[in-house]
Amino acid sequence: MERTLIEDLPKCLEEQVLIKGWVERIRELSTVTFLIVRDRTGRVQVTADPRLLAQLRIATESVVAVCGTVAPEPRAKAGYELVAESIDVLAGAANLPININGPVLQVPLELILDYRVLSLRHARINPIFKIQAALVHGFQTFLNQEGFVQVFTPKIVASGTEGGSELFSLQYFGETAYLGQSPQFYKQMLMGAGYERVYEVGHVYRAEKHATSRHLNEYVSLDLEMGFIESEDDVMELENRLLAFMFNYVAEQCPRELAALEVEVPEVPSIPRVPFTEALVILEQEFGKGGLQDLDPEGERLLCQYVRDSTGSEFVFVTDYPWEKRPMYTMPKEGGLTCSFDLLFRGLEITTGGQRIHTYELLAENTRKKGLHPDAFAFYLRSFSFGMPPHGGLAIGLERLTAQLLGLPNVREASLFPRDRHRLTP
Amino acid sequence: MERTLIEDLPKCLEEQVLIKGWVERIRELSTVTFLIVRDRTGRVQVTADPRLLAQLRIATESVVAVCGTVAPEPRAKAGYELVAESIDVLAGAANLPININGPVLQVPLELILDYRVLSLRHARINPIFKIQAALVHGFQTFLNQEGFVQVFTPKIVASGTEGGSELFSLQYFGETAYLGQSPQFYKQMLMGAGYERVYEVGHVYRAEKHATSRHLNEYVSLDLEMGFIESEDDVMELENRLLAFMFNYVAEQCPRELAALEVEVPEVPSIPRVPFTEALVILEQEFGKGGLQDLDPEGERLLCQYVRDSTGSEFVFVTDYPWEKRPMYTMPKEGGLTCSFDLLFRGLEITTGGQRIHTYELLAENTRKKGLHPDAFAFYLRSFSFGMPPHGGLAIGLERLTAQLLGLPNVREASLFPRDRHRLTP
Repeated sequence: MERTLIEDLPKCLEEQVLIKGWVERIRELSTVTFLIVRDRTGRVQVTADPRLLAQLRIATESVVAVCGTVAPEPRAKAGYELVAESIDVLAGAANLPININGPVLQVPLELILDYRVLSLRHARINPIFKIQAALVHGFQTFLNQEGFVQVFTPKIVASGTEGGSELFSLQYFGETAYLGQSPQFYKQMLMGAGYERVYEVGHVYRAEKHATSRHLNEYVSLDLEMGFIESEDDVMELENRLLAFMFNYVAEQCPRELAALEVEVPEVPSIPRVPFTEALVILEQEFGKGGLQDLDPEGERLLCQYVRDSTGSEFVFVTDYPWEKRPMYTMPKEGGLTCSFDLLFRGLEITTGGQRIHTYELLAENTRKKGLHPDAFAFYLRSFSFGMPPHGGLAIGLERLTAQLLGLPNVREASLFPRDRHRLTP
Repeated sequence: MERTLIEDLPKCLEEQVLIKGWVERIRELSTVTFLIVRDRTGRVQVTADPRLLAQLRIATESVVAVCGTVAPEPRAKAGYELVAESIDVLAGAANLPININGPVLQVPLELILDYRVLSLRHARINPIFKIQAALVHGFQTFLNQEGFVQVFTPKIVASGTEGGSELFSLQYFGETAYLGQSPQFYKQMLMGAGYERVYEVGHVYRAEKHATSRHLNEYVSLDLEMGFIESEDDVMELENRLLAFMFNYVAEQCPRELAALEVEVPEVPSIPRVPFTEALVILEQEFGKGGLQDLDPEGERLLCQYVRDSTGSEFVFVTDYPWEKRPMYTMPKEGGLTCSFDLLFRGLEITTGGQRIHTYELLAENTRKKGLHPDAFAFYLRSFSFGMPPHGGLAIGLERLTAQLLGLPNVREASLFPRDRHRLTP
């Protein structure tokens, strides 16, 4: 007999069906036992004659197959229930180290991550990663429509993109290699390879020692790069449309998951832009935070608060960062500034982007000015000698975007199996 | 003025347009200069008054912006040409180390990879990665339709999936960690996390020292895992439909790229299945290769030849591998065999898959029988105590699939920036 998914049971009233899933709850009365059985599509109440269960000793979270008839039952929440005719235990469950079937998982984050396979079954945790998958598929679908090509570039690299700090090193057949901090060099090189528009969904690595609620040592970066731009405005304009598409896509694809998390996807407006120096002025004048050289986490929160209060937007592009604050590949502009931007969303930076330098001479000069030796980037620099179009791009941190959209206080909650300074398993 | 893509020029006859791209060829006559300009969508002949070019000294493969009028021209291949009114050089090109504009790139593979940014512009190389992107998007689209969730699992791991050989090691905040050989453990754990069906597109790492035309040290693995299967047949049945979808998707999305490579996408038939032991008998009886213990590369080629000649299929599932040949997580079946399969395509293994063990006791026992210590996999094993559904899955090597589909003799040709024993750049 073919398995029926629980979401399809309303179409099977009075029919005999086979369902498979986990036993979420067991309530034993004298003449009847109630089970809540859960599969990937939903939950159903199963009623069984206690004699049917006597031999089985089913523990909560065991995996079962239940054959029975779908019967109307006004007292059941769904209006129907499954009256069991036979129950098989496909895999038993031992005593659970954490209780995953309360309305909220009242367990410290460390235990949630230690027992990840269990915590992921929770009704308020499981949907996070279905929504994350929809964000990614929205990213891919939009960019495919816009003529981008999905690429895969190496994560084992010979040098960092910004010169050696915060890199994990490994032994590679007798040479020292590193884990890529970013596909930056490769996506730029692909601008010269004729693709003009590429994107990558892949892991990046940062050997940062600090453990904050905003950092992961391994995370998924949604990268894109586009050729023949006029300025970084083209990149911001694309990101604005991209995010609107992704958010709409999630709202369409995941209504059940969003409802389970009580999340409403916000409208993505025409995103306001604030030059970096102006942002510092706002922080001083509006919040009394004077003398700042950079946007610290509190500054990012306050700026977002100001922009939301004055424009209604939960997003803000901070633009025109000073030359000192951006890597050597960033296109300079007059006044000691660069053609660069960050995107803040609900108080947190989720994107860094900008226009890049596309001529060999300027890139070599800027590399030297940054105190870096061009030889360390020879294979990258060389690709600028053979006709590189003007280009720019951006990177979105997937876990940060997910966490901000869903209101998760710690970015680890938006990573299936996070890696941080103290966590290498599961 | 907005840029027009070259593929859209036929819609702009007699109009003034701006195109941007690379100068692929220059032919100077006394009264007129012909340029072939190429962008990501195609090529067009540009005619220019030599005086327009006199100041510019355009080198081949420079990046230019050409403003001009689209004019019918029966002598041009396309039936029209662009009559230039102004030409700007956006980025010049130095002398090219390899000639990339012949009909075939007559350069050794090592040089093709050394000058990857240039070789990727070649008309017979550029399309490879657009087709690869379509294969991946086909994989994702089909699996989304089938209820799978795309996931991202860590590549920095505490142990290998098969016990320590062929792993790259790295220092992780004072601990030794490894680069994942496969998302095997994680995708299995996610079966217990309630997702039931997951897929991942991600890098995997093999520290194999041998350099063959079939191996990469870093490659992209298309992984999937599905719960509540009856046997490995369900996985093979899914892969059969998946490949048919992916191949159709490529044929639909990439007609121009396939034509450039002179490739016809084959029909994916109902794929024949040959048990492993029967495959060895075929090699002995049909090809006189006796005494084999395993399918070596020649054996894979000959078996595919036999199956193609006898059934017309370019694919064959080899099933029921002996217990000794499969990892500890493989579900055993009677006769010392396992519920496992490989898929061969045109003489090369492109998939390994099977049903997995889903109960803690059997998995711990099988791990010990394989001479491995269960403690080394504690975090993985533990997840089998809490209700793990029967499940199975597979992994497809993306570069191998691409190479076999397109008839590329070396798998490196199907990797943008391959990593092998001797190659860490570009």
